[in-house]
Amino acid sequence: MPGSSRTYAFLGPEGTFTEAALLQVPDALQAVRVPASNVNAALDRVRDGSADAAMVPIENSVEGGVTATLDAIASGEELRIIREVLVPISFVLVARPGIGLEEVRRVSTHGHAWAQCRLWVDKHIPEAEYVPGSSTAAAALGLLEQDCTYDAAICAPLVAREHPELSVLGEDIGDNPGAVTRFILVSRPGALPARTGADKTTVVVPLPEDRPGALMEILDQFASRGVNLSRIESRPTGQYLGHYFFSIDADGHAGEARVGDALAGLHRISPGTRFLGSYPRADKQVTPVAAHTSDAAFSAANTWVQSILGAESVAGESGSEASRTA
Amino acid sequence: MPGSSRTYAFLGPEGTFTEAALLQVPDALQAVRVPASNVNAALDRVRDGSADAAMVPIENSVEGGVTATLDAIASGEELRIIREVLVPISFVLVARPGIGLEEVRRVSTHGHAWAQCRLWVDKHIPEAEYVPGSSTAAAALGLLEQDCTYDAAICAPLVAREHPELSVLGEDIGDNPGAVTRFILVSRPGALPARTGADKTTVVVPLPEDRPGALMEILDQFASRGVNLSRIESRPTGQYLGHYFFSIDADGHAGEARVGDALAGLHRISPGTRFLGSYPRADKQVTPVAAHTSDAAFSAANTWVQSILGAESVAGESGSEASRTA
Amino acid sequence: MPGSSRTYAFLGPEGTFTEAALLQVPDALQAVRVPASNVNAALDRVRDGSADAAMVPIENSVEGGVTATLDAIASGEELRIIREVLVPISFVLVARPGIGLEEVRRVSTHGHAWAQCRLWVDKHIPEAEYVPGSSTAAAALGLLEQDCTYDAAICAPLVAREHPELSVLGEDIGDNPGAVTRFILVSRPGALPARTGADKTTVVVPLPEDRPGALMEILDQFASRGVNLSRIESRPTGQYLGHYFFSIDADGHAGEARVGDALAGLHRISPGTRFLGSYPRADKQVTPVAAHTSDAAFSAANTWVQSILGAESVAGESGSEASRTA
Amino acid sequence: MPGSSRTYAFLGPEGTFTEAALLQVPDALQAVRVPASNVNAALDRVRDGSADAAMVPIENSVEGGVTATLDAIASGEELRIIREVLVPISFVLVARPGIGLEEVRRVSTHGHAWAQCRLWVDKHIPEAEYVPGSSTAAAALGLLEQDCTYDAAICAPLVAREHPELSVLGEDIGDNPGAVTRFILVSRPGALPARTGADKTTVVVPLPEDRPGALMEILDQFASRGVNLSRIESRPTGQYLGHYFFSIDADGHAGEARVGDALAGLHRISPGTRFLGSYPRADKQVTPVAAHTSDAAFSAANTWVQSILGAESVAGESGSEASRTA
Repeated sequence: MPGSSRTYAFLGPEGTFTEAALLQVPDALQAVRVPASNVNAALDRVRDGSADAAMVPIENSVEGGVTATLDAIASGEELRIIREVLVPISFVLVARPGIGLEEVRRVSTHGHAWAQCRLWVDKHIPEAEYVPGSSTAAAALGLLEQDCTYDAAICAPLVAREHPELSVLGEDIGDNPGAVTRFILVSRPGALPARTGADKTTVVVPLPEDRPGALMEILDQFASRGVNLSRIESRPTGQYLGHYFFSIDADGHAGEARVGDALAGLHRISPGTRFLGSYPRADKQVTPVAAHTSDAAFSAANTWVQSILGAESVAGESGSEASRTA
Repeated sequence: MPGSSRTYAFLGPEGTFTEAALLQVPDALQAVRVPASNVNAALDRVRDGSADAAMVPIENSVEGGVTATLDAIASGEELRIIREVLVPISFVLVARPGIGLEEVRRVSTHGHAWAQCRLWVDKHIPEAEYVPGSSTAAAALGLLEQDCTYDAAICAPLVAREHPELSVLGEDIGDNPGAVTRFILVSRPGALPARTGADKTTVVVPLPEDRPGALMEILDQFASRGVNLSRIESRPTGQYLGHYFFSIDADGHAGEARVGDALAGLHRISPGTRFLGSYPRADKQVTPVAAHTSDAAFSAANTWVQSILGAESVAGESGSEASRTA
Repeated sequence: MPGSSRTYAFLGPEGTFTEAALLQVPDALQAVRVPASNVNAALDRVRDGSADAAMVPIENSVEGGVTATLDAIASGEELRIIREVLVPISFVLVARPGIGLEEVRRVSTHGHAWAQCRLWVDKHIPEAEYVPGSSTAAAALGLLEQDCTYDAAICAPLVAREHPELSVLGEDIGDNPGAVTRFILVSRPGALPARTGADKTTVVVPLPEDRPGALMEILDQFASRGVNLSRIESRPTGQYLGHYFFSIDADGHAGEARVGDALAGLHRISPGTRFLGSYPRADKQVTPVAAHTSDAAFSAANTWVQSILGAESVAGESGSEASRTA
Repeated sequence: MPGSSRTYAFLGPEGTFTEAALLQVPDALQAVRVPASNVNAALDRVRDGSADAAMVPIENSVEGGVTATLDAIASGEELRIIREVLVPISFVLVARPGIGLEEVRRVSTHGHAWAQCRLWVDKHIPEAEYVPGSSTAAAALGLLEQDCTYDAAICAPLVAREHPELSVLGEDIGDNPGAVTRFILVSRPGALPARTGADKTTVVVPLPEDRPGALMEILDQFASRGVNLSRIESRPTGQYLGHYFFSIDADGHAGEARVGDALAGLHRISPGTRFLGSYPRADKQVTPVAAHTSDAAFSAANTWVQSILGAESVAGESGSEASRTA
């Protein structure tokens, strides 16, 4: 049973949206799943080999950690994104058995989750006091402890399903019914996931200099090859305010010529560029490719240039010009 | 006493880094200062007129709220940034009187602050358990309450100074000694702060279409006029994943021709562009301006174009061409 | 008879394609038409007031003079293009009365015309010797002189029509049946021709510096405003090899906001930019305009920027920040 | 005597500036030199093998032929530029023996040469009548014929030196004392001339579509790789008015990575792009190369991309994700 030996870390604790994301990965269902207390800890498990991969949030997270993820994979030992997972964000209000909605006085959850349920809270439990929790799941599980100082928690449906002893006082209580969070599965560098035609490539590019146009030059590496960007974020390098790196998602796979060529361009302009992976898009939306940026166009162009250079012999000083035409 | 009638809101509670930022504003020292429980609440006070201005974090915050700020000022009734303030981030560990470092078992603080003091904690109180707090100040003040469930808190030096009854067990305990957070003072739209030559302009630009080059076109509005960008962040619009707006800080003041011209260009490309203000840079670094992007160059160019168009009369069908030259 | 007082110069002599172009201008039919021996002489007549306008070739001329025109209008006292005219290029072989095709031994014409009839000549009069002529018309008219040293001439149909004493030995003898030459009507600066929606604007832009990207910056002034170029030619400034100016035709009229804005941008980058006119396209092809580069978009953008700046008062040092928001 | 078997064609006749250019090529001094009556004829001799190379004007020619050259090498069987030569343009006035300056009534020369000596002519022989000549040399040699219809000719110093029977009535009579014309030596495709660090590359690029930005895309291929352009000219394709190709000289050699990469980019955008050669600059000015566009930078970038792709195995559907990281 080869699956039994695999280990997946995730931003814990159990019952969070991140675990829900991990449960979408078929292999992970049979594998050992290890919650980590923060993003760095999850990624460190991959780096030190105690996990094969880690699931962490990358965009729009309810539990925080997004900027931590961006920063953590931008430095340190190299890692690779091998998969992305989208999780619809839906909240429930859970309480200790026997507590009714009208009895809820103090509610705990992660700060981000609290912010996303304000409308429901204002309408149904306007008097409720907020008790910060380190995660939605921790808040929910805290209700099961003896000395719990609050009455209810806002959490993911997953934790409620896993703990039927909690009573659900409200479902779908988020302000934004279509909310989605994006998670990434991160491993050590290895073979790239196969091209599917609907892929995404993630890079981290330090801004080479603080001059007008430096960012333009970077983006031009994509635009001039018809590569669309689906995400770009500036992040401080942490060295000093005003010094940035860019975290960029581009449509396409590094194995496609136009993407590989853009990567080479980035490396020239900013040699500290870090490749974070090419992997299938969660939404399976196929990337349209114009004829002049297709693999065939790149291949034809290279063949043409090689044919020009092919006969290039370093004609010596003594060679007559006319003889070169023979 | 005109100052007595002014009111400043800030992301509270009292004693946080945000209040420290507000105390750097001379007018605020004499004014009423009102803590708000979150960024939206602070900004709403400005919008509804119950505060004249609000101080909120915009970059690199210890207490969170940065993305909340980016999102809150990007929509709703228009607001304007009129000042930026930089606050060095320095943490202290405080405890209830009589508690020594060796007795600290449970420590509370905001999650972001906890993440930024890991090295010191691992070295000096490795066994300490983390108790989430809604802010650094709240965690510190909680120590003064009867039923406090933790022994110490990580907070800003300000709150320790304001509450001498707390004993300081560690100073400068942050992992990154040079850390700085940037805050903005936000008001309702009105006269722009005067040009100083060392100004910054902030805009929010919805990406018009998801096509290669759309972002390039936006950035080109700055680059082609020699306007440098000091910050660019993509933020999801919240409508659907993959739909973004960009929050951008550019060097210069909207009253400068090259910046005004760039703003006009942004508005053409993306009519939903929102102007968030022109205001003095906290670091007072003067913006260098090339001759061909100076106000004089713009003025000369406009005069030239006007001189070309000046004599333009809509010559009728019957007018002879040669007569136009008379 | 108002038309009687007007004078048009043209690159002569009479009977050339340039006169054919001039005869397409309704006003010119009644006016005095003065042939000039070269492009400079024709333009000088406009500059010194002895002609109201001059017709000269600008593109693809049979009689030469195109580069002379480009250079002559690029320097000296300013002139303006007020009209363009297209003339289909069709050649005839004419001879002295009584001469048959088989008797033609020596043929005169302008060198460019000779080059454009090689196929016909090689097929029908392969033995013919070439005698250089200063123009097609001069060659044709020379046949009527007593001591003419050649038997036939290649010229425009116009001169054959005007001189029925010449016998036509071949019609439509050009190698390229669809050939067209473009001419411009040039006057002193005055009111611009009215906008028609199908206009062209011509400028001369000295390349500011010999650096990568200088030309890009110039072209970007057009591209970033959606202005298409229909012609671009580099011409040496004559000062030293490798120093260029660019002669550019752009779609649109200087009175259109996107074109006027592009002109202003050119002037900033290269203050020596010279405006040579906005005038109706000979082919009457309407210029498509994208919504975001329409006059309405520019107007809305300017109004928006003005509204931002509108309330700008230079708030004094003593003014409180909060009071600015009142 | 290996030199004896080589043949060079040139735009004739003998004694023109083009022959002066050819005499700067060491090998040509011993070779057979064949004048051709026009540029096409000269190039056809190379194409059909009856000459090894041909010298023709490419820029600023006194004898015309420049646009003919641009057009002739842009189509037909491929040719290669292997050398460029600069010739200072200096004119002399020659006459039949016994004729003094005051007796000169009719002067023959090429039309371009006539235009370049107007100041001297207007001052010294203002009454002189112009007789068109097919070249400066033909005009000069015509003086030696019995039935010559003119008294003097304007020609290159070379023809006067070769024919001492002509008397020189004026030297350095050109209006522009620093005038220079550029010539190219053209051969059939073969090994490229060796890189010298001071090279030039010439290409012909058909404009792919008449849309805003198409030319920008082409130029961006150079600019984004730091390749400077020293010449750009639009030429009509001859198919219909408004359809262009661009003749471009770029600094650098196709064997340099940044130039080769730019060529590949051109080919992708406009597959009809034609390579006309890389050859040493006549002025021997070394091309400066920025670090990030050096061969080393390109090589490092490619190595980096290969290292990313190196382990790429098309992982099958059945492969588990975690196993890829092993």
